[in-house]
Amino acid sequence: MMLVNGQPAETLPLDDRGLAYGDGLFETLAAFDGACPWFERHLARLRMGCDVLGLPHPDAEALREETRRVAAGRKRAVIKWIVTAGSGGRGYARPQPVQPRRIVQAHPWPAHPRAYWDEGIALHVCRLRLSAQPALAGIKHLNRLEQVLARQELPEGCAEGVLCNAAGEVVEGIASNLFAVLDDTLITPPVGDCGVNGLMRRWVLETAVEAGIDTAIEPLRPDDLERAREIFTTNALIGLWPVRRIGETDVSTGPVQKRLLARLLETYPVIDG
Amino acid sequence: MMLVNGQPAETLPLDDRGLAYGDGLFETLAAFDGACPWFERHLARLRMGCDVLGLPHPDAEALREETRRVAAGRKRAVIKWIVTAGSGGRGYARPQPVQPRRIVQAHPWPAHPRAYWDEGIALHVCRLRLSAQPALAGIKHLNRLEQVLARQELPEGCAEGVLCNAAGEVVEGIASNLFAVLDDTLITPPVGDCGVNGLMRRWVLETAVEAGIDTAIEPLRPDDLERAREIFTTNALIGLWPVRRIGETDVSTGPVQKRLLARLLETYPVIDG
Repeated sequence: MMLVNGQPAETLPLDDRGLAYGDGLFETLAAFDGACPWFERHLARLRMGCDVLGLPHPDAEALREETRRVAAGRKRAVIKWIVTAGSGGRGYARPQPVQPRRIVQAHPWPAHPRAYWDEGIALHVCRLRLSAQPALAGIKHLNRLEQVLARQELPEGCAEGVLCNAAGEVVEGIASNLFAVLDDTLITPPVGDCGVNGLMRRWVLETAVEAGIDTAIEPLRPDDLERAREIFTTNALIGLWPVRRIGETDVSTGPVQKRLLARLLETYPVIDG
Repeated sequence: MMLVNGQPAETLPLDDRGLAYGDGLFETLAAFDGACPWFERHLARLRMGCDVLGLPHPDAEALREETRRVAAGRKRAVIKWIVTAGSGGRGYARPQPVQPRRIVQAHPWPAHPRAYWDEGIALHVCRLRLSAQPALAGIKHLNRLEQVLARQELPEGCAEGVLCNAAGEVVEGIASNLFAVLDDTLITPPVGDCGVNGLMRRWVLETAVEAGIDTAIEPLRPDDLERAREIFTTNALIGLWPVRRIGETDVSTGPVQKRLLARLLETYPVIDG
């Protein structure tokens, strides 16, 4: 089911600025038994993205109600929100006032193998380098060609790719954030110049700090990953996947990721715990 | 009039990857008396963009016929092509095989004041810096948030903005390329790391070389612009606009731009010559 500004719809006006320029934002939420436990977190990030792009905030109550409607009756579902700058113009200047368009969709829950959580995944280090754009970093905007190109690099059997910045430092996964345990510290790279400030990344940071795990936001290089004791990748749909191999190097799975995943599953059942 | 894969339409399926990720390309063509004199140039750049993004080339004959249909009966029109990676999936991986979607639209010719050509425009130097992404530079892809953000910086009375890279070097205008005459040499910045390789930019370079004007593709800094003898800005819809002011600095208009514009108007009547 798909709703556009609250109305059932399967199409979008051709003059939407989301199509023309990627002028908008998105969020992908996990819904369990018809409800999104992280609704408020996604809403807060969407609002932050609106502030960055200069768009008015979406109507939170409408979004809540529409999310409920599309998620109803599903054990697990992926809810996608798209907020665009609406119809308008051929040219970079937005019409004033902006009349944003709100799209709410439900998609089937992805059928990832259970082994991804239990045994881990293989990571590929992509050649494509993320560009640095502090004006857009962190938010979930619709300009995602870097991710589309990087995804084409993934060899068969690799579930995720590592993206580095122009300096060769690790930033994130194609559709996830990355964590490594090095010398007993849980490290994830900064996302101030490029990358997405993932909600599961934030949850992991908060939860690790609460659990007394030494935690740091620091640059990582691909060879740091190869000597890491544990690596895992996170997003709001997978929760947390251990990494068992990066390139040609085997990585052990370990206690930090297991502890965090178990903790997550208590309230956020991405798998049957 | 708007055509989607050759059929009259006003909407696009909501699952189009152009909306979801900006996974596609566009071209804006000038049509005069129902014909696009630069059809082949735009088609060549669109094909190059398809190669960069890994998309199949659009059907050239269909594009030609559809362009003719939407441009028919108009003295001047803006034709916009959008080619997207088509419907498919929630995720960065494209469905295989990709079934691209082809959108052909006609828009009214923009009503720019005649003085922009005769007397010149004012330029504003934008704070936003373009990010460097050699994997996407040059092509007209749908990821245009940098331009949308920069456009918001333009003060009243400035018709175009100057965009610099992270090193502070001038790259282009928000929706145009830039040229400066410095020490009798016509200079435009390289677009290998960011920026669009504009068709009017190429025409100017070719035409200047043929006309015996010293020409170079070299980095320019904002202070180079301030001491330039002439500056002008180019794209396929405006042709060439002289610059009469940049920031607080007046710039003289001069013979190089006049000669090039007169030459252009012989075959490409963006104004009543």
